[in-house]
Amino acid sequence: MSGSTPSSLPASTPRDLTEVFHRVAPQMAALDRFMTDQVSRFEPEIRGMAAYCLETSGKRLRPSLVFISGWQGVGIVSDDLVRAAGVVEMVHLATLVHDDIMDGAEIRRNRRTAAREFGPDAAVLLGDALFSQALHIAAQFPTTEVCRLVSESTRQVCSGEIMQTLRRRDTALSQADYYRIIDLKTAELFRASCVLGASLAGYPAGFVKAANDFGRHLGIAYQIYDDLADFLGDETRIGKTLGTDLASGKLTLPLMILLEKLPAGEREPVLDALRGGHPLPLAAEAARMKELGIAAGVIAAIEAELSLAEAALAPHASLAPVPFLLQLRELLRGQVAAISPGVARV
Amino acid sequence: MSGSTPSSLPASTPRDLTEVFHRVAPQMAALDRFMTDQVSRFEPEIRGMAAYCLETSGKRLRPSLVFISGWQGVGIVSDDLVRAAGVVEMVHLATLVHDDIMDGAEIRRNRRTAAREFGPDAAVLLGDALFSQALHIAAQFPTTEVCRLVSESTRQVCSGEIMQTLRRRDTALSQADYYRIIDLKTAELFRASCVLGASLAGYPAGFVKAANDFGRHLGIAYQIYDDLADFLGDETRIGKTLGTDLASGKLTLPLMILLEKLPAGEREPVLDALRGGHPLPLAAEAARMKELGIAAGVIAAIEAELSLAEAALAPHASLAPVPFLLQLRELLRGQVAAISPGVARV
Repeated sequence: MSGSTPSSLPASTPRDLTEVFHRVAPQMAALDRFMTDQVSRFEPEIRGMAAYCLETSGKRLRPSLVFISGWQGVGIVSDDLVRAAGVVEMVHLATLVHDDIMDGAEIRRNRRTAAREFGPDAAVLLGDALFSQALHIAAQFPTTEVCRLVSESTRQVCSGEIMQTLRRRDTALSQADYYRIIDLKTAELFRASCVLGASLAGYPAGFVKAANDFGRHLGIAYQIYDDLADFLGDETRIGKTLGTDLASGKLTLPLMILLEKLPAGEREPVLDALRGGHPLPLAAEAARMKELGIAAGVIAAIEAELSLAEAALAPHASLAPVPFLLQLRELLRGQVAAISPGVARV
Repeated sequence: MSGSTPSSLPASTPRDLTEVFHRVAPQMAALDRFMTDQVSRFEPEIRGMAAYCLETSGKRLRPSLVFISGWQGVGIVSDDLVRAAGVVEMVHLATLVHDDIMDGAEIRRNRRTAAREFGPDAAVLLGDALFSQALHIAAQFPTTEVCRLVSESTRQVCSGEIMQTLRRRDTALSQADYYRIIDLKTAELFRASCVLGASLAGYPAGFVKAANDFGRHLGIAYQIYDDLADFLGDETRIGKTLGTDLASGKLTLPLMILLEKLPAGEREPVLDALRGGHPLPLAAEAARMKELGIAAGVIAAIEAELSLAEAALAPHASLAPVPFLLQLRELLRGQVAAISPGVARV
């Protein structure tokens, strides 16, 4: 076990998205043009609403997975990869539109959510229109493979979200339930993005499978990070309302570990808040997490997934996408370290 | 102009769904098996919810359009048509799940809506999962044609619903706006169902186009009928809560015609109810519609669409689906007559 903070990471480790994404900048620029063009494919009456949702302010993690899993060298911008990236991003944006209705979130990426901007009813339908258009783009590939993969993934993402919704305020949720839910709601689309990138770029089936496994474990790791950031993150930097998980009764891994570590007498107020009783202030919760060293346990869980992600790629080290994918993994490590400074890494 | 009531319809006119659907019974039985099998394609945790939505209690109008537009003779059950029927029905059921959230409807087809049964949040996601699975079935055809058609149609249906939602309580909605909305939200999927049936059955392009136009005009006619039934229908027989359009601020053709015909002094209470003010009792509204002969104007609008539907088929009278499609048109005429007995037909 060696202590490590962001400042002690190896020099080659990327510090932020800008650095890693610099190399896929031409692909991202092509994606921006693609998404802007997509706005005109919606009925004139709803173009303004579609444009609001498709604006280029997001992190574009899933498109980056498509581009990096299908990486073939500097300057190679494949139309197929751009289109596939557009599909996964639009599916993701559609799920965000629906998520924000249910979470009652007001702010996403430093501006009003679609539900807040257009009302929840219109947001339900707008999400549906985005889903439909994503599948319509998927149907423009010469074969049905992309449509099959994306529609299957979308259904799984929704199923994960349903399970999460039905288990809200359920304090009996197990870690196995939690992993099942995040595997579906988050890892599934990461996985699909990597498969699309690798297969559309023509890489061999063995690497497509490796990219599948890498994407899945990276996705699980990312969701655990995101759940930790809900307690320990910086609202301004992360661009969304924090502390919503406990308030909305979502039992995530950081909370599970907190409940395990809290002295018996302190558990009841947290369980009560989860059940929808007296709310707890985020600051108090975050402070208690820090005191009890919860982050170390959560980071160990993230590291376990990142090891599996790396192991999947090991047999394919000679392929162009692999070092780049490993950088993505390092990037997530850096983000985790940024919200938990000074916490020992396993 | 000749007076005609249900009892004076020609003897060959079908009286109810049973009679017309008798001939597609083997296809419908195959569709039932297909839909039941689909339940097992959902994640185990949400199968019960999917089964609730996919149960076979609906009218299955869109599947009947697929089967009848692709009619090739008694006893011929095509797997492709059954699958296409499953796709359009699942898309339709998904839209119903989302519609009922927005309408706050409690009852659909004589039982609780999914939103009422599982809560609105789960219903948003369940609708999404149904949409995704519908597109997943569409992606199982050998080419991307079905996926392209269905995803495009689905987006248009959602766009129509968005427009309707945004124009709720807007008393300035014009008849042109109304027709644009129902063309998208209803006629689009009728049209797509007819195109799928005719093209998957291998009929020539000319007939596919005719089926397209027939489906579109039948769909518009059907929606106008449905809007009239919201005032004049029989709640038990129709299986959903009536009078919801006025209460929810939806300005439909019967209301538009009522507003035109009402003496100036009587308009304000209706406009006020539309704007969300003092609600009006359905019985009073329906009685006033009958007194003023509103149904005759609405039926004239329906007949205009049915004439266009018939005209589209005229050059293809020798093809097997045509007489059968015309019976569907007669069936709708019969349904219209049943909710407006004694009203003169144009």
